[in-house]
Amino acid sequence: MIMTRAEVERAASRIAGHVRRTPVAEAAPGLLLKLESLQHSGSFKVRGAFNRVLAAGTVPEAGVIAASGGNHGVAVAYAARALGVRAEIFVPEVCAPVKVAGLRALGAHVTQTGAIFADAYEASAKRAAETGALEVHAYDQADVVAGQGTLGLELLEQARPLGGLDTVLVAVGGGGLVAGVAAALAGEERGPRVVAVEPERIPTLHEALARGGPVPVEVGGVGADALGATRAGRIAFDTARALGVEVVLVGEEAIVEARRALWRDHRVAAEHAGAAALAALRAGAYVPGPGERVAVVVCGGNTDPSTLA
Amino acid sequence: MIMTRAEVERAASRIAGHVRRTPVAEAAPGLLLKLESLQHSGSFKVRGAFNRVLAAGTVPEAGVIAASGGNHGVAVAYAARALGVRAEIFVPEVCAPVKVAGLRALGAHVTQTGAIFADAYEASAKRAAETGALEVHAYDQADVVAGQGTLGLELLEQARPLGGLDTVLVAVGGGGLVAGVAAALAGEERGPRVVAVEPERIPTLHEALARGGPVPVEVGGVGADALGATRAGRIAFDTARALGVEVVLVGEEAIVEARRALWRDHRVAAEHAGAAALAALRAGAYVPGPGERVAVVVCGGNTDPSTLA
Ligand SMILES: Cc1ncc(COP(=O)(O)O)c(C=O)c1O
Ligand SMILES: Cc1ncc(COP(=O)(O)O)c(C=O)c1O
Repeated sequence: MIMTRAEVERAASRIAGHVRRTPVAEAAPGLLLKLESLQHSGSFKVRGAFNRVLAAGTVPEAGVIAASGGNHGVAVAYAARALGVRAEIFVPEVCAPVKVAGLRALGAHVTQTGAIFADAYEASAKRAAETGALEVHAYDQADVVAGQGTLGLELLEQARPLGGLDTVLVAVGGGGLVAGVAAALAGEERGPRVVAVEPERIPTLHEALARGGPVPVEVGGVGADALGATRAGRIAFDTARALGVEVVLVGEEAIVEARRALWRDHRVAAEHAGAAALAALRAGAYVPGPGERVAVVVCGGNTDPSTLA
Repeated sequence: MIMTRAEVERAASRIAGHVRRTPVAEAAPGLLLKLESLQHSGSFKVRGAFNRVLAAGTVPEAGVIAASGGNHGVAVAYAARALGVRAEIFVPEVCAPVKVAGLRALGAHVTQTGAIFADAYEASAKRAAETGALEVHAYDQADVVAGQGTLGLELLEQARPLGGLDTVLVAVGGGGLVAGVAAALAGEERGPRVVAVEPERIPTLHEALARGGPVPVEVGGVGADALGATRAGRIAFDTARALGVEVVLVGEEAIVEARRALWRDHRVAAEHAGAAALAALRAGAYVPGPGERVAVVVCGGNTDPSTLA
């Protein structure tokens, strides 16, 4: 399924008033930072979560259900609370107690089960089949991808008075964000192109495009807590291929360095996943042409602040 | 001396390209955050520093000189380095080694002298008289105040497409920022009014307005490192009185709470001074009317991030 701008526009109308229009900072001449780390729940994930729930119309009594101890789980719990519906979140047994407590503080019912994420996910799917709860996938549902894409529409509007854009760099886990943003920008005449950024240690979309479809990859490194999907989503793959999204890879040190620089030079608190797109620029994985206007999406700020400096 | 919008506009042309146009975040319906904590050097102080140095035309060989171990010192050192001139910064002996190291890392020549700030300031004035270096005052020079006011012009422009503004809350130390912003907004037809926010423990402008002129106050509390001027500047007093700037006072706990909320709800890293204006809203020291559109200036982000959560 190829995501479309029309879908993203519908999502934008649905979620307006529920998500923040996050600010754009001019970091340097020709370089914009889309500060999505300032979004409700600390990441863009609420966009997809709100759109999925609102698009469903009536939510079953069992509420919504998701599997994730990370930003997706927090976003679903946040959206459910805001909309007054029940949320069940499945996380693996290894999930850090502080994350479980955070989910519970948002009013979610948390179930810890399974050794790894895939086990928690399976348990959540089984539970959803029993209860009829509305599943909110982390990246491979049309309404989720469309919701994430609303970030792209916003960025287009915000960049216009600042001189416009040639290129947008977006970090990739399962690819929901990059597919949504690519779809949002695809409708634009002479619109900016999207470059997907992946850690070398989690090349889901890179491998999918190289092999003609999503395949499992090994997952590791500093970005794994947020970018650690084991394979690209089908929607991400189809959309990225159809719209010609290019992928660049960044190393561990580049990500760590970019996160430090965001704090040191901009007082922007980013998690590693949130610094990956900037890392591609700083480490030269993506080299803009002369005068090229680039935006970098700082997609998450859920990090222990004591590790910023 | 009453600051004028024309002066602020001249400052804006001078410093364009040297300072960042910092982003504005919509925190809630009718509430904007001007994220000046994302400015070069981590506070608005570079605006005044650049304007003072650039307005001087040629800088003497002895360079520029300032007294401050805090944001003003860092800003002057930053501006001097950017403009390729020498900077001498005087700080009291108690100045934290990490701050001295930070100033040296920016290339400044640091002199530690005197028990308190006033001693360091006197030593710097004496040295300036000897060497002919250009003094950059922390708040009571017209070019400094005009530079700080450029934040107000920017905010006006940025707020327009977001629905406009009725009120701007600004934290006060010596009053350079609030005077500059008040002057910037005074030119505007039906322009927003400025509310000055001071810690109860450093009521410089409050006392000045109550007593008909700047008087020394006792200085203490969490905001003292940045807001701890011992009296309001003359320009601040004259301008605030002429333009009818109202002052509200906030307690220590309110400042601490507002700083925590900025991190928790917005992933904005603010120092205590940077959270004081928001504290006035959250603690009810300033209560907006129905539908009133308020902007809060988050004026500094120079803080140890490990203390944010
Ligand atoms: C901060 C952050 N960035 C990027 C991603 C990757 O998003 P996607 O799976 O849509 O590619 C995630 C996913 O959790 C995230 O939390
Ligand atoms: C972060 C911050 N906010 C506010 C102020 C107060 O500025 P002014 O002295 O212009 O009132 C200062 C002064 O250093 C500061 O550093």
